Amino acid sequence: MGYHEWKSCIDACLQCAAVCNHCASSCTKEEDVKMMAGCIEMDMQCAAVCYASAQLMSMGSPHAKQLCSICADICEACGNECGKHQTEHCQECARICKECAEECRKMAA
Amino acid sequence: MGYHEWKSCIDACLQCAAVCNHCASSCTKEEDVKMMAGCIEMDMQCAAVCYASAQLMSMGSPHAKQLCSICADICEACGNECGKHQTEHCQECARICKECAEECRKMAA
Amino acid sequence: MGYHEWKSCIDACLQCAAVCNHCASSCTKEEDVKMMAGCIEMDMQCAAVCYASAQLMSMGSPHAKQLCSICADICEACGNECGKHQTEHCQECARICKECAEECRKMAA
Amino acid sequence: MGYHEWKSCIDACLQCAAVCNHCASSCTKEEDVKMMAGCIEMDMQCAAVCYASAQLMSMGSPHAKQLCSICADICEACGNECGKHQTEHCQECARICKECAEECRKMAA
Repeated sequence: MGYHEWKSCIDACLQCAAVCNHCASSCTKEEDVKMMAGCIEMDMQCAAVCYASAQLMSMGSPHAKQLCSICADICEACGNECGKHQTEHCQECARICKECAEECRKMAA
Repeated sequence: MGYHEWKSCIDACLQCAAVCNHCASSCTKEEDVKMMAGCIEMDMQCAAVCYASAQLMSMGSPHAKQLCSICADICEACGNECGKHQTEHCQECARICKECAEECRKMAA
Repeated sequence: MGYHEWKSCIDACLQCAAVCNHCASSCTKEEDVKMMAGCIEMDMQCAAVCYASAQLMSMGSPHAKQLCSICADICEACGNECGKHQTEHCQECARICKECAEECRKMAA
Repeated sequence: MGYHEWKSCIDACLQCAAVCNHCASSCTKEEDVKMMAGCIEMDMQCAAVCYASAQLMSMGSPHAKQLCSICADICEACGNECGKHQTEHCQECARICKECAEECRKMAA
Protein backbone atom coordinates (compact mmCIF):
# COMPACT_ATOMS: atom_id res chain seq x y z
CA MET A 1 0.00 0.00 0.00
CA GLY A 2 1.23 3.52 -0.64
CA TYR A 3 0.95 6.65 -2.75
CA HIS A 4 -1.54 5.53 -5.41
CA GLU A 5 -3.83 3.55 -3.07
CA TRP A 6 -3.87 6.38 -0.53
CA LYS A 7 -4.05 9.23 -3.02
CA SER A 8 -7.47 10.58 -2.03
CA CYS A 9 -6.36 10.92 1.60
CA ILE A 10 -2.99 12.42 0.58
CA ASP A 11 -4.78 15.00 -1.58
CA ALA A 12 -7.22 15.80 1.22
CA CYS A 13 -4.35 16.35 3.69
CA LEU A 14 -2.36 18.55 1.30
CA GLN A 15 -5.44 20.60 0.45
CA CYS A 16 -6.25 20.93 4.15
CA ALA A 17 -2.71 22.07 5.02
CA ALA A 18 -2.85 24.77 2.34
CA VAL A 19 -6.32 25.99 3.30
CA CYS A 20 -5.34 26.11 6.99
CA ASN A 21 -2.28 28.22 6.16
CA HIS A 22 -4.50 30.50 4.09
CA CYS A 23 -7.16 30.71 6.81
CA ALA A 24 -4.64 31.50 9.57
CA SER A 25 -3.05 34.25 7.50
CA SER A 26 -6.48 35.67 6.53
CA CYS A 27 -7.63 35.60 10.17
CA THR A 28 -4.76 37.93 11.14
CA LYS A 29 -6.16 40.49 8.66
CA GLU A 30 -9.72 40.46 10.04
CA GLU A 31 -11.11 43.47 11.90
CA ASP A 32 -11.70 41.45 15.08
CA VAL A 33 -8.52 39.35 15.32
CA LYS A 34 -9.16 38.41 18.93
CA MET A 35 -12.28 36.50 17.92
CA MET A 36 -10.10 34.54 15.46
CA ALA A 37 -7.37 33.61 17.96
CA GLY A 38 -8.52 30.01 18.49
CA CYS A 39 -8.95 29.57 14.76
CA ILE A 40 -5.37 30.71 14.05
CA GLU A 41 -4.02 28.33 16.68
CA MET A 42 -5.95 25.34 15.35
CA ASP A 43 -5.06 26.18 11.74
CA MET A 44 -1.35 26.14 12.56
CA GLN A 45 -1.51 22.79 14.34
CA CYS A 46 -3.73 21.29 11.66
CA ALA A 47 -1.44 22.36 8.80
CA ALA A 48 1.58 20.81 10.54
CA VAL A 49 -0.04 17.42 11.11
CA CYS A 50 -1.80 17.29 7.73
CA TYR A 51 1.49 17.77 5.93
CA ALA A 52 3.29 15.14 8.01
CA SER A 53 0.43 12.71 7.31
CA ALA A 54 0.68 13.39 3.58
CA GLN A 55 4.43 12.77 3.78
CA LEU A 56 4.15 9.41 5.55
CA MET A 57 1.40 8.26 3.17
CA SER A 58 3.40 9.35 0.11
CA MET A 59 6.34 7.35 1.43
CA GLY A 60 4.13 4.29 1.95
CA SER A 61 5.03 4.27 5.64
CA PRO A 62 3.65 1.54 7.95
CA HIS A 63 3.14 4.35 10.51
CA ALA A 64 0.82 6.33 8.20
CA LYS A 65 -2.41 4.92 9.65
CA GLN A 66 -1.47 5.83 13.22
CA LEU A 67 -0.64 9.40 12.20
CA CYS A 68 -3.88 9.71 10.23
CA SER A 69 -5.80 8.83 13.36
CA ILE A 70 -4.33 11.86 15.19
CA CYS A 71 -4.78 13.94 12.06
CA ALA A 72 -8.48 13.12 11.96
CA ASP A 73 -8.88 14.38 15.55
CA ILE A 74 -7.04 17.63 14.82
CA CYS A 75 -8.91 18.23 11.55
CA GLU A 76 -12.21 17.72 13.32
CA ALA A 77 -11.27 20.13 16.12
CA CYS A 78 -10.03 22.69 13.59
CA GLY A 79 -13.15 22.31 11.47
CA ASN A 80 -15.35 22.89 14.53
CA GLU A 81 -13.42 26.02 15.50
CA CYS A 82 -13.44 27.46 11.96
CA GLY A 83 -17.12 26.58 11.58
CA LYS A 84 -18.02 29.14 14.29
CA HIS A 85 -17.01 32.04 12.04
CA GLN A 86 -18.91 33.38 9.03
CA THR A 87 -15.88 34.68 7.11
CA GLU A 88 -15.44 32.98 3.75
CA HIS A 89 -11.96 31.60 4.54
CA CYS A 90 -13.19 30.07 7.82
CA GLN A 91 -16.21 28.47 6.17
CA GLU A 92 -14.03 27.08 3.37
CA CYS A 93 -11.51 25.82 5.91
CA ALA A 94 -14.21 24.19 8.06
CA ARG A 95 -15.54 22.30 5.03
CA ILE A 96 -12.09 21.11 3.87
CA CYS A 97 -11.13 20.10 7.44
CA LYS A 98 -14.24 17.96 7.76
CA GLU A 99 -13.61 16.24 4.44
CA CYS A 100 -10.01 15.61 5.49
CA ALA A 101 -11.08 14.24 8.89
CA GLU A 102 -13.35 11.79 7.09
CA GLU A 103 -10.60 10.65 4.70
CA CYS A 104 -8.18 10.24 7.62
CA ARG A 105 -10.72 8.20 9.61
CA LYS A 106 -11.05 5.83 6.65
CA MET A 107 -7.24 5.54 6.38
CA ALA A 108 -6.87 4.90 10.10
CA ALA A 109 -9.61 2.25 10.20
CA MET B 1 -2.51 38.35 -4.01
CA GLY B 2 -2.60 35.02 -2.23
CA TYR B 3 -4.16 31.58 -1.94
CA HIS B 4 -6.92 31.81 -4.56
CA GLU B 5 -4.91 33.74 -7.18
CA TRP B 6 -1.95 31.41 -6.76
CA LYS B 7 -3.91 28.19 -6.43
CA SER B 8 -2.63 26.47 -9.60
CA CYS B 9 0.98 26.94 -8.47
CA ILE B 10 0.17 25.88 -4.88
CA ASP B 11 -1.50 22.71 -6.20
CA ALA B 12 1.46 21.99 -8.49
CA CYS B 13 3.92 22.37 -5.59
CA LEU B 14 1.90 20.15 -3.24
CA GLN B 15 1.47 17.50 -5.91
CA CYS B 16 5.18 17.66 -6.70
CA ALA B 17 6.18 17.31 -3.03
CA ALA B 18 3.99 14.20 -2.67
CA VAL B 19 5.21 12.60 -5.90
CA CYS B 20 8.85 13.28 -4.95
CA ASN B 21 8.33 11.60 -1.57
CA HIS B 22 6.72 8.66 -3.36
CA CYS B 23 9.49 8.47 -5.96
CA ALA B 24 12.30 8.59 -3.37
CA SER B 25 10.69 5.84 -1.33
CA SER B 26 10.04 3.73 -4.45
CA CYS B 27 13.63 4.21 -5.64
CA THR B 28 14.93 2.59 -2.43
CA LYS B 29 12.93 -0.54 -3.35
CA GLU B 30 14.36 -0.89 -6.87
CA GLU B 31 16.75 -3.72 -7.76
CA ASP B 32 19.54 -1.32 -8.71
CA VAL B 33 19.37 1.28 -5.93
CA LYS B 34 22.78 2.72 -6.77
CA MET B 35 21.50 3.87 -10.16
CA MET B 36 18.72 5.71 -8.30
CA ALA B 37 20.97 7.52 -5.80
CA GLY B 38 20.89 10.89 -7.55
CA CYS B 39 17.15 10.63 -8.00
CA ILE B 40 16.58 9.99 -4.28
CA GLU B 41 18.74 12.98 -3.39
CA MET B 42 16.97 15.35 -5.77
CA ASP B 43 13.54 14.06 -4.71
CA MET B 44 14.28 14.87 -1.06
CA GLN B 45 15.46 18.40 -1.82
CA CYS B 46 12.60 19.02 -4.24
CA ALA B 47 9.93 17.88 -1.76
CA ALA B 48 11.33 20.19 0.93
CA VAL B 49 11.34 23.31 -1.25
CA CYS B 50 8.02 22.57 -2.97
CA TYR B 51 6.26 22.35 0.37
CA ALA B 52 7.84 25.55 1.68
CA SER B 53 6.79 27.32 -1.54
CA ALA B 54 3.23 26.07 -1.15
CA GLN B 55 3.25 27.33 2.44
CA LEU B 56 4.43 30.85 1.58
CA MET B 57 1.95 31.11 -1.30
CA SER B 58 -0.93 29.86 0.88
CA MET B 59 -0.01 32.52 3.44
CA GLY B 60 0.03 35.20 0.74
CA SER B 61 3.64 36.02 1.57
CA PRO B 62 5.48 38.84 -0.26
CA HIS B 63 8.48 36.44 -0.33
CA ALA B 64 6.59 33.72 -2.25
CA LYS B 65 7.84 34.80 -5.68
CA GLN B 66 11.50 34.68 -4.63
CA LEU B 67 11.08 31.20 -3.22
CA CYS B 68 9.24 29.99 -6.33
CA SER B 69 12.21 31.07 -8.41
CA ILE B 70 14.49 28.68 -6.46
CA CYS B 71 11.78 26.05 -6.51
CA ALA B 72 11.62 26.21 -10.31
CA ASP B 73 15.37 25.51 -10.53
CA ILE B 74 15.17 22.55 -8.16
CA CYS B 75 12.07 21.10 -9.86
CA GLU B 76 13.80 21.34 -13.22
CA ALA B 77 16.96 19.63 -11.90
CA CYS B 78 14.87 16.93 -10.23
CA GLY B 79 12.77 16.40 -13.36
CA ASN B 80 15.93 16.00 -15.45
CA GLU B 81 17.36 13.45 -13.03
CA CYS B 82 14.13 11.44 -12.77
CA GLY B 83 13.67 11.61 -16.53
CA LYS B 84 16.78 9.45 -17.00
CA HIS B 85 15.04 6.41 -15.50
CA GLN B 86 12.34 4.29 -17.11
CA THR B 87 10.62 3.19 -13.89
CA GLU B 88 7.01 4.34 -13.71
CA HIS B 89 7.49 6.41 -10.52
CA CYS B 90 10.48 8.25 -12.03
CA GLN B 91 8.64 9.01 -15.25
CA GLU B 92 5.60 10.24 -13.32
CA CYS B 93 7.85 12.33 -11.07
CA ALA B 94 9.73 13.82 -14.04
CA ARG B 95 6.46 14.92 -15.64
CA ILE B 96 5.05 16.46 -12.43
CA CYS B 97 8.38 18.21 -11.69
CA LYS B 98 8.40 19.83 -15.11
CA GLU B 99 4.81 21.04 -14.76
CA CYS B 100 5.68 22.44 -11.34
CA ALA B 101 8.82 24.16 -12.65
CA GLU B 102 6.67 25.85 -15.28
CA GLU B 103 4.07 27.02 -12.74
CA CYS B 104 6.84 28.32 -10.46
CA ARG B 105 8.49 30.23 -13.32
CA LYS B 106 5.17 31.95 -14.02
CA MET B 107 4.79 32.83 -10.31
CA ALA B 108 8.35 34.15 -10.10
CA ALA B 109 8.05 36.29 -13.25
CA MET C 1 30.11 20.89 2.17
CA GLY C 2 27.13 19.83 4.20
CA TYR C 3 25.70 19.01 7.62
CA HIS C 4 28.81 19.29 9.78
CA GLU C 5 30.30 22.37 8.06
CA TRP C 6 26.94 24.13 8.12
CA LYS C 7 25.87 23.02 11.57
CA SER C 8 25.79 26.44 13.26
CA CYS C 9 23.43 27.77 10.56
CA ILE C 10 21.29 24.61 10.66
CA ASP C 11 20.96 24.92 14.44
CA ALA C 12 20.10 28.62 14.15
CA CYS C 13 17.37 27.87 11.58
CA LEU C 14 15.85 25.02 13.61
CA GLN C 15 15.89 27.12 16.78
CA CYS C 16 14.33 30.02 14.89
CA ALA C 17 11.57 27.83 13.43
CA ALA C 18 10.67 26.54 16.89
CA VAL C 19 10.72 29.96 18.54
CA CYS C 20 8.58 31.43 15.72
CA ASN C 21 5.99 28.67 16.20
CA HIS C 22 6.03 29.37 19.93
CA CYS C 23 5.76 33.14 19.45
CA ALA C 24 2.86 32.86 16.97
CA SER C 25 0.95 30.58 19.30
CA SER C 26 1.68 32.81 22.32
CA CYS C 27 0.59 35.93 20.38
CA THR C 28 -2.88 34.43 19.87
CA LYS C 29 -3.22 34.24 23.67
CA GLU C 30 -2.33 37.89 24.33
CA GLU C 31 -4.97 40.36 25.53
CA ASP C 32 -4.53 42.58 22.46
CA VAL C 33 -4.29 40.04 19.65
CA LYS C 34 -4.89 42.67 16.97
CA MET C 35 -1.61 44.37 17.88
CA MET C 36 0.12 41.00 17.35
CA ALA C 37 -1.39 40.28 13.92
CA GLY C 38 1.72 41.22 11.91
CA CYS C 39 3.90 39.25 14.28
CA ILE C 40 1.80 36.08 13.87
CA GLU C 41 1.97 36.42 10.09
CA MET C 42 5.73 36.90 10.01
CA ASP C 43 6.28 34.08 12.51
CA MET C 44 4.40 31.63 10.29
CA GLN C 45 6.35 32.58 7.18
CA CYS C 46 9.66 32.58 9.02
CA ALA C 47 9.11 29.13 10.54
CA ALA C 48 8.31 27.67 7.11
CA VAL C 49 11.41 29.03 5.41
CA CYS C 50 13.76 28.37 8.34
CA TYR C 51 12.80 24.71 8.36
CA ALA C 52 13.22 24.33 4.60
CA SER C 53 16.65 25.98 4.85
CA ALA C 54 17.66 23.58 7.63
CA GLN C 55 16.49 20.69 5.46
CA LEU C 56 18.50 21.71 2.38
CA MET C 57 21.61 22.36 4.46
CA SER C 58 21.27 19.02 6.27
CA MET C 59 21.02 17.32 2.88
CA GLY C 60 24.14 19.14 1.66
CA SER C 61 22.15 20.67 -1.19
CA PRO C 62 23.86 22.94 -3.76
CA HIS C 63 20.72 25.11 -3.51
CA ALA C 64 21.13 25.72 0.24
CA LYS C 65 22.95 29.04 -0.14
CA GLN C 66 20.25 30.52 -2.38
CA LEU C 67 17.55 29.54 0.08
CA CYS C 68 19.52 30.94 3.04
CA SER C 69 19.63 34.29 1.26
CA ILE C 70 15.81 34.46 1.24
CA CYS C 71 15.73 33.07 4.77
CA ALA C 72 17.98 35.91 5.98
CA ASP C 73 15.54 38.49 4.56
CA ILE C 74 12.52 36.84 6.19
CA CYS C 75 14.28 36.39 9.54
CA GLU C 76 15.28 40.05 9.53
CA ALA C 77 11.74 41.18 8.70
CA CYS C 78 10.31 38.87 11.37
CA GLY C 79 12.86 40.04 13.95
CA ASN C 80 11.97 43.67 13.23
CA GLU C 81 8.25 42.97 13.63
CA CYS C 82 8.68 40.96 16.85
CA GLY C 83 11.08 43.58 18.21
CA LYS C 84 8.22 46.13 18.35
CA HIS C 85 6.50 44.21 21.15
CA GLN C 86 7.58 44.00 24.79
CA THR C 87 6.12 40.54 25.52
CA GLU C 88 8.78 38.04 26.52
CA HIS C 89 8.08 35.65 23.62
CA CYS C 90 8.35 38.48 21.07
CA GLN C 91 11.61 39.75 22.54
CA GLU C 92 13.05 36.22 22.57
CA CYS C 93 11.86 35.65 19.00
CA ALA C 94 13.34 38.96 17.81
CA ARG C 95 16.73 38.03 19.25
CA ILE C 96 16.75 34.50 17.77
CA CYS C 97 15.55 35.82 14.38
CA LYS C 98 18.40 38.30 14.24
CA GLU C 99 21.00 35.67 15.13
CA CYS C 100 19.52 33.40 12.45
CA ALA C 101 19.54 36.20 9.86
CA GLU C 102 23.23 36.72 10.57
CA GLU C 103 24.05 33.00 10.24
CA CYS C 104 22.06 32.81 6.98
CA ARG C 105 23.85 35.86 5.55
CA LYS C 106 27.18 34.13 6.23
CA MET C 107 25.93 30.93 4.55
CA ALA C 108 24.65 32.84 1.53
CA ALA C 109 27.84 34.86 1.08
CA MET D 1 2.60 23.52 29.15
CA GLY D 2 4.46 24.39 25.99
CA TYR D 3 7.70 25.53 24.43
CA HIS D 4 9.84 26.15 27.51
CA GLU D 5 8.64 23.13 29.52
CA TRP D 6 9.04 20.84 26.50
CA LYS D 7 12.29 22.34 25.23
CA SER D 8 14.52 19.29 25.71
CA CYS D 9 12.14 17.13 23.65
CA ILE D 10 11.73 19.86 21.00
CA ASP D 11 15.51 20.14 20.69
CA ALA D 12 15.87 16.36 20.46
CA CYS D 13 13.26 16.18 17.68
CA LEU D 14 14.80 19.04 15.67
CA GLN D 15 18.27 17.55 16.04
CA CYS D 16 16.95 14.14 15.01
CA ALA D 17 15.18 15.55 11.92
CA ALA D 18 18.40 17.25 10.78
CA VAL D 19 20.59 14.20 11.40
CA CYS D 20 18.12 11.95 9.57
CA ASN D 21 18.16 14.27 6.55
CA HIS D 22 21.95 14.24 6.66
CA CYS D 23 22.11 10.45 7.04
CA ALA D 24 19.69 9.80 4.17
CA SER D 25 21.63 12.07 1.86
CA SER D 26 24.97 10.56 2.93
CA CYS D 27 23.60 7.02 2.41
CA THR D 28 22.91 7.80 -1.26
CA LYS D 29 26.64 8.58 -1.66
CA GLU D 30 27.89 5.29 -0.18
CA GLU D 31 29.54 2.66 -2.38
CA ASP D 32 26.89 0.04 -1.54
CA VAL D 33 23.66 2.08 -1.70
CA LYS D 34 21.48 -1.03 -1.82
CA MET D 35 22.60 -1.97 1.69
CA MET D 36 21.48 1.51 2.83
CA ALA D 37 18.00 1.37 1.26
CA GLY D 38 16.14 0.64 4.50
CA CYS D 39 18.10 3.32 6.29
CA ILE D 40 17.19 5.97 3.70
CA GLU D 41 13.52 5.03 3.96
CA MET D 42 13.45 5.17 7.74
CA ASP D 43 15.43 8.44 7.80
CA MET D 44 12.86 10.12 5.55
CA GLN D 45 9.91 9.01 7.67
CA CYS D 46 11.69 9.87 10.91
CA ALA D 47 12.61 13.39 9.75
CA ALA D 48 9.00 14.09 8.76
CA VAL D 49 7.49 13.00 12.08
CA CYS D 50 10.22 14.55 14.24
CA TYR D 51 9.65 17.93 12.67
CA ALA D 52 5.87 17.73 13.05
CA SER D 53 6.33 16.75 16.71
CA ALA D 54 8.64 19.72 17.28
CA GLN D 55 6.04 21.97 15.65
CA LEU D 56 3.14 20.79 17.85
CA MET D 57 5.25 21.05 21.00
CA SER D 58 6.47 24.55 20.07
CA MET D 59 2.84 25.57 19.57
CA GLY D 60 1.90 24.12 22.98
CA SER D 61 -0.62 21.83 21.31
CA PRO D 62 -2.80 19.48 23.41
CA HIS D 63 -2.13 16.88 20.67
CA ALA D 64 1.65 16.99 21.14
CA LYS D 65 1.81 14.01 23.51
CA GLN D 66 -0.09 11.75 21.13
CA LEU D 67 2.22 12.66 18.27
CA CYS D 68 5.33 12.13 20.42
CA SER D 69 4.15 8.59 21.12
CA ILE D 70 4.22 7.78 17.38
CA CYS D 71 7.46 9.70 17.03
CA ALA D 72 9.11 7.55 19.70
CA ASP D 73 8.18 4.38 17.76
CA ILE D 74 9.55 5.73 14.49
CA CYS D 75 12.76 7.04 16.11
CA GLU D 76 13.33 3.66 17.70
CA ALA D 77 12.78 1.83 14.41
CA CYS D 78 15.05 4.29 12.59
CA GLY D 79 17.74 4.01 15.27
CA ASN D 80 17.66 0.21 15.00
CA GLU D 81 18.01 0.34 11.23
CA CYS D 82 20.84 2.90 11.28
CA GLY D 83 22.57 0.98 14.07
CA LYS D 84 23.17 -1.94 11.68
CA HIS D 85 25.65 0.09 9.63
CA GLN D 86 29.19 1.11 10.61
CA THR D 87 29.35 4.34 8.58
CA GLU D 88 29.86 7.40 10.77
CA HIS D 89 26.60 9.11 9.70
CA CYS D 90 24.58 5.98 10.47
CA GLN D 91 26.18 5.54 13.90
CA GLU D 92 25.60 9.22 14.70
CA CYS D 93 22.00 8.96 13.48
CA ALA D 94 21.37 5.80 15.52
CA ARG D 95 22.56 7.53 18.69
CA ILE D 96 20.50 10.70 18.12
CA CYS D 97 17.40 8.63 17.21
CA LYS D 98 17.63 6.68 20.44
CA GLU D 99 18.02 9.83 22.53
CA CYS D 100 15.02 11.33 20.73
CA ALA D 101 12.94 8.18 21.25
CA GLU D 102 13.65 8.43 24.97
CA GLU D 103 12.69 12.11 25.14
CA CYS D 104 9.49 11.41 23.19
CA ARG D 105 8.54 8.52 25.49
CA LYS D 106 8.88 10.86 28.48
CA MET D 107 6.70 13.47 26.72
CA ALA D 108 4.07 10.89 25.81
CA ALA D 109 3.91 9.39 29.30
